[in-house]
Amino acid sequence: MKLMTFLTDFGIKSSYIAQMKAVALNITNPKIIDITHNITPQNVKEGAFILKTTAPYFPNGTVHVAVVDPGVGTDRRGIVVTTKTQILVGPDNGLLIPAAKHISEFQVYEIKNKKLMEDSISDMFHGRDIFTPVASYILDGVFFDQVGPRIHDYKKLDLDNSVIKERTAEGEAIHIDDFGNVITNIDGLKLRQTLDFNKKIKLNIGKKQVQMPFVRTYGETKKNTALSTIGSSNYFEISVNQGDAKEKYKVKLGDKIKISF
Amino acid sequence: MKLMTFLTDFGIKSSYIAQMKAVALNITNPKIIDITHNITPQNVKEGAFILKTTAPYFPNGTVHVAVVDPGVGTDRRGIVVTTKTQILVGPDNGLLIPAAKHISEFQVYEIKNKKLMEDSISDMFHGRDIFTPVASYILDGVFFDQVGPRIHDYKKLDLDNSVIKERTAEGEAIHIDDFGNVITNIDGLKLRQTLDFNKKIKLNIGKKQVQMPFVRTYGETKKNTALSTIGSSNYFEISVNQGDAKEKYKVKLGDKIKISF
Amino acid sequence: MKLMTFLTDFGIKSSYIAQMKAVALNITNPKIIDITHNITPQNVKEGAFILKTTAPYFPNGTVHVAVVDPGVGTDRRGIVVTTKTQILVGPDNGLLIPAAKHISEFQVYEIKNKKLMEDSISDMFHGRDIFTPVASYILDGVFFDQVGPRIHDYKKLDLDNSVIKERTAEGEAIHIDDFGNVITNIDGLKLRQTLDFNKKIKLNIGKKQVQMPFVRTYGETKKNTALSTIGSSNYFEISVNQGDAKEKYKVKLGDKIKISF
Repeated sequence: MKLMTFLTDFGIKSSYIAQMKAVALNITNPKIIDITHNITPQNVKEGAFILKTTAPYFPNGTVHVAVVDPGVGTDRRGIVVTTKTQILVGPDNGLLIPAAKHISEFQVYEIKNKKLMEDSISDMFHGRDIFTPVASYILDGVFFDQVGPRIHDYKKLDLDNSVIKERTAEGEAIHIDDFGNVITNIDGLKLRQTLDFNKKIKLNIGKKQVQMPFVRTYGETKKNTALSTIGSSNYFEISVNQGDAKEKYKVKLGDKIKISF
Repeated sequence: MKLMTFLTDFGIKSSYIAQMKAVALNITNPKIIDITHNITPQNVKEGAFILKTTAPYFPNGTVHVAVVDPGVGTDRRGIVVTTKTQILVGPDNGLLIPAAKHISEFQVYEIKNKKLMEDSISDMFHGRDIFTPVASYILDGVFFDQVGPRIHDYKKLDLDNSVIKERTAEGEAIHIDDFGNVITNIDGLKLRQTLDFNKKIKLNIGKKQVQMPFVRTYGETKKNTALSTIGSSNYFEISVNQGDAKEKYKVKLGDKIKISF
Repeated sequence: MKLMTFLTDFGIKSSYIAQMKAVALNITNPKIIDITHNITPQNVKEGAFILKTTAPYFPNGTVHVAVVDPGVGTDRRGIVVTTKTQILVGPDNGLLIPAAKHISEFQVYEIKNKKLMEDSISDMFHGRDIFTPVASYILDGVFFDQVGPRIHDYKKLDLDNSVIKERTAEGEAIHIDDFGNVITNIDGLKLRQTLDFNKKIKLNIGKKQVQMPFVRTYGETKKNTALSTIGSSNYFEISVNQGDAKEKYKVKLGDKIKISF
């Protein structure tokens, strides 16, 4: 099974995604899975977070094309990142690195080989004209060293810069889902070492300070009650049971989140 | 052809759906079709309606994973529902039952066998860690009785509780599509036995009372005109020709709808 | 590889798309790609533009089902359009013609053969009950002349009616993507013959007049700066670097766009 995924900030109104898939289908015959196309526009950090928490679920050999790419058409490079189990293709802006690091040791290759690109390349759409064909040829057996030279000065991005202390933790809102759950970059497994479920916590979100319980699952609170928990990707998150925490607390991506307990 | 569908209220911003698909692809190699991921959050009734009106179209042997699951992580059970032609997997909260009943006689099995689940189970995401792997193993040939014991006290849900009389009909808004068409649970085929096309009807929606024609298709009315009709799933619905009935009449899911004719 | 695409204005909340795919899967086993389901409701012109700029990317033999169909259930005909490389199936309202013309010479067949349709046909949903089964049978080898008679009086639609002069160009907003980029029907390749990159242009959008640079790619401007460029489908478009041009200039589909340079 040849498996290719797509993660972008392109949205679903246009046909950019279909154009990428069509390019792939002209080269090879992959099974195609969409990770999401609704990354907040140009938010490389959110894209990197979603890729990191999703790519590892996929079978060995999956090739992920990820495009959150405000620098498209400038001199930012395109890269292929190889891990022990998965391959990631996209811009050299940090997007791919947290996923790679999370999976295993990894190597980064700069995309240079024009034979692996479309004949005509739009300055506006390297996802279609460079990343997708490169990913397709890799799925078809092209070796990584044919892509271009291995590089070490790729752009880094660290998502896991939250701070967990004995009675506090600090991070930021890194993703907000369609329920309005606010997912932070605070490592839930580490937090659980110092904070037990069913405790009340104090939370600073932006300029607000609120109290809420820290629980194992939504159903342990009443409907429309605010709660905090460890989400399904093992990060600390803020929710309202059957409600919308983003709306309730007017949270935006990047807002600082501080917990005291 | 192994066919698996997904219906959820997860939205499309996150990668929850991709995570479920990845889990499936680690177990088997199904063709995957999305039914929808935009059920109104936690609205089990709307999810059950969409599943009921969609599942029967699929080829025999299709396995449907449906997750609208406000009780995730509590003691609500997970179930597999088998009909003569299709299999449904999801929470025991009524979601699967109207579809099953609509297809044929059915049997319900409680999901108990931990070997058919992921090794590590998030209290927040049984869709990924229980329902999808169970569905995948079933597609791969696991027998229903290996899932767990057959149960009879599953949670029931009746969508078809509308009342059609000689000169009136009463039901509720059960789904609103992206055009703004308001779909009710009033059975269109039954309604047609007492109400002919091209008649004017009186409609009570929430607190409003309005008049509109009952027509065979949109094109029989003028642009921007309100109309009522029998939709493509054979339920009574309220529309505005090339407009948005939900906006015009400020309808919400669950609003009572009464027709007089 | 049997390849089928879908383009509609159905949105993603309902299960209309899943119903069409289920119908296809009962007839044949295609690989299915979504072009988009978020064409502005009933906007045949935008649908035709997206189909035109996307269909040509697909491999030879692809069958495209396109449904933007305000006249469904009236006497508007259904058609199959055959080009040298691709087949298009949908309503006879102009939707398919610009794509066909762009690909090659083409022929139009009226859909008449009831054996290629579902047994029971909803007046509201020819996409599911007529276009999808016809497309599926064609993928399966049914000859075009079995669909129905060839016709010449199909409904025409011309998207490329913009006017490019020595120092001006006029067209309209024909598509707006999820970034808020406003894509016009002004041919970018022709425009480039009289207008060089890095020039300032004057732009009339609706009633507003504004100045902005004409650049090769977003990254050549500062963040939050308005710019104009040639998009990835070779049409003139208006953007805000990491911002939303639609919001900034309150542009709606169909708004006249005039450039002076």
